[in-house]
Amino acid sequence: MKCNFSAALSDFLFEYETPRLVLVKSKRVGIVCRLIQLIVLAYIIGWVFIYEKGYQISDTAISSVFTKMKGVGYTEVNGVERVWDVSDYVFPDQGDSSFVVMTNYILTPGQKQGKCPALPGKHNCQSDKDCEKGDYKRTGHGQMTGKCVQENKTCEIFSWCPIENDAVIPDPPLLMSAENYTLFIKNSITFPDFGVVRSNLVEGVDNNYIRHCLYSESDPFCPIFRLGDIVTMSGFTFSQIASEGGAIGILIDWTCDLDWQLKHCLPVYNFHGLYGNGNKEDDSAASMGYNFRNAKYYMEGEVEKRTLTKVFGIRIDVLVRGLARKFDIIPTLTAIGSGVGIFGVATVLGDLVLLYVLPRRNFYKNKKFKNASNDEEKSVLQRCKTETEPVKE
Amino acid sequence: MKCNFSAALSDFLFEYETPRLVLVKSKRVGIVCRLIQLIVLAYIIGWVFIYEKGYQISDTAISSVFTKMKGVGYTEVNGVERVWDVSDYVFPDQGDSSFVVMTNYILTPGQKQGKCPALPGKHNCQSDKDCEKGDYKRTGHGQMTGKCVQENKTCEIFSWCPIENDAVIPDPPLLMSAENYTLFIKNSITFPDFGVVRSNLVEGVDNNYIRHCLYSESDPFCPIFRLGDIVTMSGFTFSQIASEGGAIGILIDWTCDLDWQLKHCLPVYNFHGLYGNGNKEDDSAASMGYNFRNAKYYMEGEVEKRTLTKVFGIRIDVLVRGLARKFDIIPTLTAIGSGVGIFGVATVLGDLVLLYVLPRRNFYKNKKFKNASNDEEKSVLQRCKTETEPVKE
Amino acid sequence: MKCNFSAALSDFLFEYETPRLVLVKSKRVGIVCRLIQLIVLAYIIGWVFIYEKGYQISDTAISSVFTKMKGVGYTEVNGVERVWDVSDYVFPDQGDSSFVVMTNYILTPGQKQGKCPALPGKHNCQSDKDCEKGDYKRTGHGQMTGKCVQENKTCEIFSWCPIENDAVIPDPPLLMSAENYTLFIKNSITFPDFGVVRSNLVEGVDNNYIRHCLYSESDPFCPIFRLGDIVTMSGFTFSQIASEGGAIGILIDWTCDLDWQLKHCLPVYNFHGLYGNGNKEDDSAASMGYNFRNAKYYMEGEVEKRTLTKVFGIRIDVLVRGLARKFDIIPTLTAIGSGVGIFGVATVLGDLVLLYVLPRRNFYKNKKFKNASNDEEKSVLQRCKTETEPVKE
Repeated sequence: MKCNFSAALSDFLFEYETPRLVLVKSKRVGIVCRLIQLIVLAYIIGWVFIYEKGYQISDTAISSVFTKMKGVGYTEVNGVERVWDVSDYVFPDQGDSSFVVMTNYILTPGQKQGKCPALPGKHNCQSDKDCEKGDYKRTGHGQMTGKCVQENKTCEIFSWCPIENDAVIPDPPLLMSAENYTLFIKNSITFPDFGVVRSNLVEGVDNNYIRHCLYSESDPFCPIFRLGDIVTMSGFTFSQIASEGGAIGILIDWTCDLDWQLKHCLPVYNFHGLYGNGNKEDDSAASMGYNFRNAKYYMEGEVEKRTLTKVFGIRIDVLVRGLARKFDIIPTLTAIGSGVGIFGVATVLGDLVLLYVLPRRNFYKNKKFKNASNDEEKSVLQRCKTETEPVKE
Repeated sequence: MKCNFSAALSDFLFEYETPRLVLVKSKRVGIVCRLIQLIVLAYIIGWVFIYEKGYQISDTAISSVFTKMKGVGYTEVNGVERVWDVSDYVFPDQGDSSFVVMTNYILTPGQKQGKCPALPGKHNCQSDKDCEKGDYKRTGHGQMTGKCVQENKTCEIFSWCPIENDAVIPDPPLLMSAENYTLFIKNSITFPDFGVVRSNLVEGVDNNYIRHCLYSESDPFCPIFRLGDIVTMSGFTFSQIASEGGAIGILIDWTCDLDWQLKHCLPVYNFHGLYGNGNKEDDSAASMGYNFRNAKYYMEGEVEKRTLTKVFGIRIDVLVRGLARKFDIIPTLTAIGSGVGIFGVATVLGDLVLLYVLPRRNFYKNKKFKNASNDEEKSVLQRCKTETEPVKE
Repeated sequence: MKCNFSAALSDFLFEYETPRLVLVKSKRVGIVCRLIQLIVLAYIIGWVFIYEKGYQISDTAISSVFTKMKGVGYTEVNGVERVWDVSDYVFPDQGDSSFVVMTNYILTPGQKQGKCPALPGKHNCQSDKDCEKGDYKRTGHGQMTGKCVQENKTCEIFSWCPIENDAVIPDPPLLMSAENYTLFIKNSITFPDFGVVRSNLVEGVDNNYIRHCLYSESDPFCPIFRLGDIVTMSGFTFSQIASEGGAIGILIDWTCDLDWQLKHCLPVYNFHGLYGNGNKEDDSAASMGYNFRNAKYYMEGEVEKRTLTKVFGIRIDVLVRGLARKFDIIPTLTAIGSGVGIFGVATVLGDLVLLYVLPRRNFYKNKKFKNASNDEEKSVLQRCKTETEPVKE
């Protein structure tokens, strides 16, 4: 037994098994097989490795964005002129990655809690019994008091009075000057797996450059954007979007091959309208109309009042997408391994040609196969064969 | 030499090598081997390809969300009635993906900077020496003046006075009406690699539909949600969450197979409580209690005053997850390749049976193996064998 | 024909093909081959499986963050003392994942719309003709009225007056006390594919623990952080960052192996400065200087006024990265499969040694290869050989 084992071991160690092959000197089969192998090889090297970089692992980025608007707006509404600076027209003010630039507005000053007739069309009534006390519409402005105001045939409601009337949107938009505002984007990106940190203030983009540059085809790395340009590049016309508002996505795309120097890891800025459904026309259509209400509260003596502003504006979402790739041994070997596997296919195909296509297939068959069978187990197929056609050798 | 080379080349090109095989006509081995091969094949086709879609590459989405609440609230606190509209009860107001709907509050009007006794329990004292001037508690409201107010046995502090007393939380919550508010979610999603843009306003969800629909089992694509339903679907009871606040995540799940038409790429809405620790009971428990303080500042003459509101509310985070998959040649061939590799296992197992299990194993061994060895290198194993059992052929 | 088919089928089923092998009893080749095989095996098991966990699939997390600051600030500016509580110094107030803690500020009270001379240096002028009416600078504060104010040689502009003068930044920063503020982070994380929900309030972190703990090396799971510590850990000095502001990223890193118990899935907190360009010195430099303007509006009679605050502060972004891994059959078999493929390489290399290195290579060649060729197709190479060197056997 012991002998058996140690023997088996030494055999296993010092013995080498290699398959016995038939050498077929046939141009046809040779060419076919080599061709297939060549294709496989080309695929593995050319496609997997060079084109798809199959030898790399990837890491998605964690990112942080800070934005800052600059510019002054000016309006003159029936004689009253007003300037608007950043703290007036940007919401929120602390420089989020998602913010709104006001381009148009409907002002309802001096609102205070009280009773006033609803807007025409909202709560129409003929008599008080049409206005059920305490009832309200989801889309309404307040709660019915149960009184029907005969003057304008609407129920009286308890609400912030006077009620905002947003029937008519100022056109042309009041803050067309917004077109010349500029947006400064600071974007910091981290690839945790690779321990790489990058900023969109890449090499060459220093304070001096920033002071003068403006993003454009020719300055693709300048982090300062003119609002008008952003709108145009995302496929809108400014006047159109400014009046009713809209939403725009600024996609900062980092696709980095870290097998190269870090300085080649650069951001690409894309601009597109949001909230569409893929189809371009609808897209702009659906994106149209971004607004929200902002209230500024103040006390007048003991009475709380507020200035309600319906803000139409351009909502800008800065979206960041970072993907870094780097050489790694695992995917490399996996690709090779599965490649070698595919190589096996070449032989299979080659055999098909050899054993079923070529005229001398039976000759090759006998060379390739060796029957390990006693007669009683003799292959039915061969018996058939012998009857049909004599194997010529 | 030259001859050698060109010859070698022509040989390499026109020569085909194929392994020589032993044909074993044995039902047992045959079945075993075919079975194994069948399993492998079933795995590759059935599992990798059909079930796991191993032939596809995936792309994660970049998304942008815009929310809008609608609805009117009404409160009557000791005789004073008040209506609350969106700008009153939503924070922040510009329609972020993460926002808070106020459902309950503690109001502290007319605060101004000054000196007042601390709340009982915060800075208790017997005499002035218990109140060190300039000292303060991290969780306190201000800085001690060094004086001990005998009336209520607490240190006097310099702070916003009067100090908010949030000992008792209004119950039932003041804004139970919030249950009927509705939330409109606009979600735009982009798959950069595939260049696909989608919105949750999918086919059939047009302005007309939106005006009337409400999200439910039967309307799974309506982007309008009743706040009460959201709370229920995330496993809370409204009254419970409304009084002390809580956090809810609305997960919009896009799982798209882009080998099909785009219109089959649809959102799925999930609702769950946040800030739990996985365990359901604790979950709701931990999620309970979401609040923050909001201050409205105003001037009274030269004096800055503020109205402090401790806001209890439902914090809603709209989280988006997009994963699109599409056919690609690389994963397909990798799967096939590694599959072919696994096929090799079949042969290995077959051989084991053939050479170590079957009674006629030695017969097969001789057929399979050909010894290329001179006597002095003769296998130890065989010598052992010959001693133990005579090889019968 | 029928016979043929059924025969072929039965053959296919009950026939087993196994390659014929040459057994070479050669220590050298044996060792070489076994060695290669060993390496491949070591790679597959040791590296792919144990080290890289190649048998697992991964899922990235969806996360939601809620933050809450605590602490009181105190300032005394030329005699006027003031306390600052959370609602005064945190922007925004509802506890976002990205927020700003004010550490320094420039106050411009009582601004109202009107005409006043521009700041020196902005719109210098000698006479009115230097000030074109209606013109404005992008970085300016308002619109020129066309008048040149001789006193201070600048154009008169229509703007919020008085104009903020941010020439000198208060140093030392007014709110150094911010160093002792504390930040409480609630982070909820979801792995949709695995249906796992976790919170950073992990096992053992209960309300009782939270009340007293503070994050540190020794308390790595305490979700309460001292602002001063955060700044230090991210490589800044507090006084430096406090005066001009800066941006800090708190990265919560979840790397979970869900083949283990869930309780081992724990967060790791990292702190680093943002908006740098990778290079450490520049990094801190670039991060320096975070500020924005916040306006508090109020009415004085009919006149709208505002208190403008230029806020310098520490902007904190809580970034979450979740990656969970779990056993799955697909990657496992893919790894094995491609591994088996790589095994093939062993044989290839073994053959090279056998057929081209060893002295008795020709002997082995004849054993391995069987010529299936008629003389007229005889290999050129062999003819060459026979001329050059006689094959010794």
